[in-house]
Amino acid sequence: MTIEFDAPSRDKLALEEGTSFTPKFDANGLITAVVTDADDNALLMVAHMNAEALMLTLDTGIAHYFSRSRGKIWKKGETSGNLQTVVDVLTDCDQDALLIKVRVAGHDATCHTGRRSCFYRSVRITDGVPRLISIDEHRHFVPSEVYKA
Amino acid sequence: MTIEFDAPSRDKLALEEGTSFTPKFDANGLITAVVTDADDNALLMVAHMNAEALMLTLDTGIAHYFSRSRGKIWKKGETSGNLQTVVDVLTDCDQDALLIKVRVAGHDATCHTGRRSCFYRSVRITDGVPRLISIDEHRHFVPSEVYKA
Repeated sequence: MTIEFDAPSRDKLALEEGTSFTPKFDANGLITAVVTDADDNALLMVAHMNAEALMLTLDTGIAHYFSRSRGKIWKKGETSGNLQTVVDVLTDCDQDALLIKVRVAGHDATCHTGRRSCFYRSVRITDGVPRLISIDEHRHFVPSEVYKA
Repeated sequence: MTIEFDAPSRDKLALEEGTSFTPKFDANGLITAVVTDADDNALLMVAHMNAEALMLTLDTGIAHYFSRSRGKIWKKGETSGNLQTVVDVLTDCDQDALLIKVRVAGHDATCHTGRRSCFYRSVRITDGVPRLISIDEHRHFVPSEVYKA
């Protein structure tokens, strides 16, 4: 199936209250995708999609992103087995961000470090200096065993 | 208090596992901030921060963003009363995104449309055409009464 996206309306009311899905890609052709666990709303990762990745995600029901570092489509979990089955896709008021609600297969881990979520560190300020403390050291897999050169 | 942020390390291990908080701002000096309700993890909005907004957020405990449309610091809720008290700030593995966990004052609404969350529409595909359906029509306030010209 080919899914195409129309250009965003210039009418703010149409964008915010209409039924047309017109994702607003940025100057690099990307839109921010916030990925949460469909069951408990935990934030798993923040990634980016281009139109092709979004089309593949909607068409296959498996989350695809655009890897900015590798410059290509990225079927999340293809190497690790931690594929993301899409439960719902939502957009925000001005349609420049997406929420992808997923269930994660494999090790139930999303971060390449082996943790469930990429957000495993919290900021603490001590004497004006911001520091990170880990809030999750549990590794669901050993990265060196999963990502082989 | 002046909080300063060092430049990101080129050492991937230091970035991912270290205790230095070195947020990676993009070419426009911005970092993506995902904002959730600290109590139930609901995604409320996606916004952006520059270094000053992040510093103000960490220093005051009230969420500040950078408004790309207005080109200035934006103390969220200053007009509507829906200020966000920050409960936690987290960063992801490569430190190019933030998770801001908040409690919302006022109407307990984050979206300027009056809804609790900016993510109030879900994408549905019918015959290859993506459409939006509303999943939340409850308005916590009347925008025209709150945002006066």
